[in-house]
Amino acid sequence: MGEDTGTERSETQTAIMEATYRALCEHGYADLTMQAIADEFEKSKSLIHYHYDTKEELLVAFLDYLIDGFLAKVEDTDDEDPRERLDTLVDTLLAGPEKSEDFQVAMLELRSQAPYVEAYREAFSANDAHLRSLLADTVRDGIEAGEFRDVDPDRVAETLLVLVDGARSRSVLFGDSDTVEHTRQTIDGYVRSHLLPDDT
Amino acid sequence: MGEDTGTERSETQTAIMEATYRALCEHGYADLTMQAIADEFEKSKSLIHYHYDTKEELLVAFLDYLIDGFLAKVEDTDDEDPRERLDTLVDTLLAGPEKSEDFQVAMLELRSQAPYVEAYREAFSANDAHLRSLLADTVRDGIEAGEFRDVDPDRVAETLLVLVDGARSRSVLFGDSDTVEHTRQTIDGYVRSHLLPDDT
Repeated sequence: MGEDTGTERSETQTAIMEATYRALCEHGYADLTMQAIADEFEKSKSLIHYHYDTKEELLVAFLDYLIDGFLAKVEDTDDEDPRERLDTLVDTLLAGPEKSEDFQVAMLELRSQAPYVEAYREAFSANDAHLRSLLADTVRDGIEAGEFRDVDPDRVAETLLVLVDGARSRSVLFGDSDTVEHTRQTIDGYVRSHLLPDDT
Repeated sequence: MGEDTGTERSETQTAIMEATYRALCEHGYADLTMQAIADEFEKSKSLIHYHYDTKEELLVAFLDYLIDGFLAKVEDTDDEDPRERLDTLVDTLLAGPEKSEDFQVAMLELRSQAPYVEAYREAFSANDAHLRSLLADTVRDGIEAGEFRDVDPDRVAETLLVLVDGARSRSVLFGDSDTVEHTRQTIDGYVRSHLLPDDT
């Protein structure tokens, strides 16, 4: 269920991912250890080491797991029209992978380590490229369907991701949830003024 | 020089701030110690401890120092017209406090610690509130001068900061400097479609 979009994951691997999620919520990234993940895992710690040699390797797998979860959420919208699909993508991106505030904080922290840890940087870049092409393809479909103006799909995708990242990081940093709602409205305005034909 | 906008700082304190800047570029935030800062400081380490009890206290002073530097940069533009002033503010914000990539990385890291360290969170929030009112006041001046439409100045300021934060964090994370330039163009489009009267 929901696992068919990406990497094949065994039940054990999925359980390790869930334990990692709980450990990140509990400890944040800086204090995260393999032991802390093992403490959240109901089977033996050696099973974790069997699948993942290092904390870094485990966290890269965790980032893939998150993106697969995201793709599972949005894949149901395949048959909607481009504007509805763009709305769904933006809503899902703005909502983030999970609602827990502790988790959002830990992810912001993990993200800030990407410039120091090449494997994280690669994982974040790959995820981002995936999101960018989902958004750009949707814009491209909208142009072909005559629903959107003849804009640059890649630039639109980049602008949407800049707005989503800015809103989410500010929301986590300042604890101000209005930012996300306001940015949703800003994106609506951007879509109207930039993508939709003048007479809509 | 450039110190008249904020906290009074002695020569020693300024030298400590400069040492902190170099230490952050060299070590990043996670590996930053008082000793690493002392190593970049030409006078005695005890002088640092005389002024700042803890690393946290020193870094809060450092964040104040950065915002003072920013304000010194933009205060020369007081007499320009609102649109030019808004452009200058956006350019300065997008350029960031310093050009060194290592420093941008360290600042992103420090920012990610704000949810865990109340003193950092307060300093980032205070700096942000300051920037937000600078932007909102400029928009308000533009509305009063009849240059801008009757928009909500606070919401415009928030949108600009979301775009600036998103662009800068993505630029640091993905090492893609085009993002900042593209976001500058997005902001121009936003100002034209949202702030300027229809006939310009």
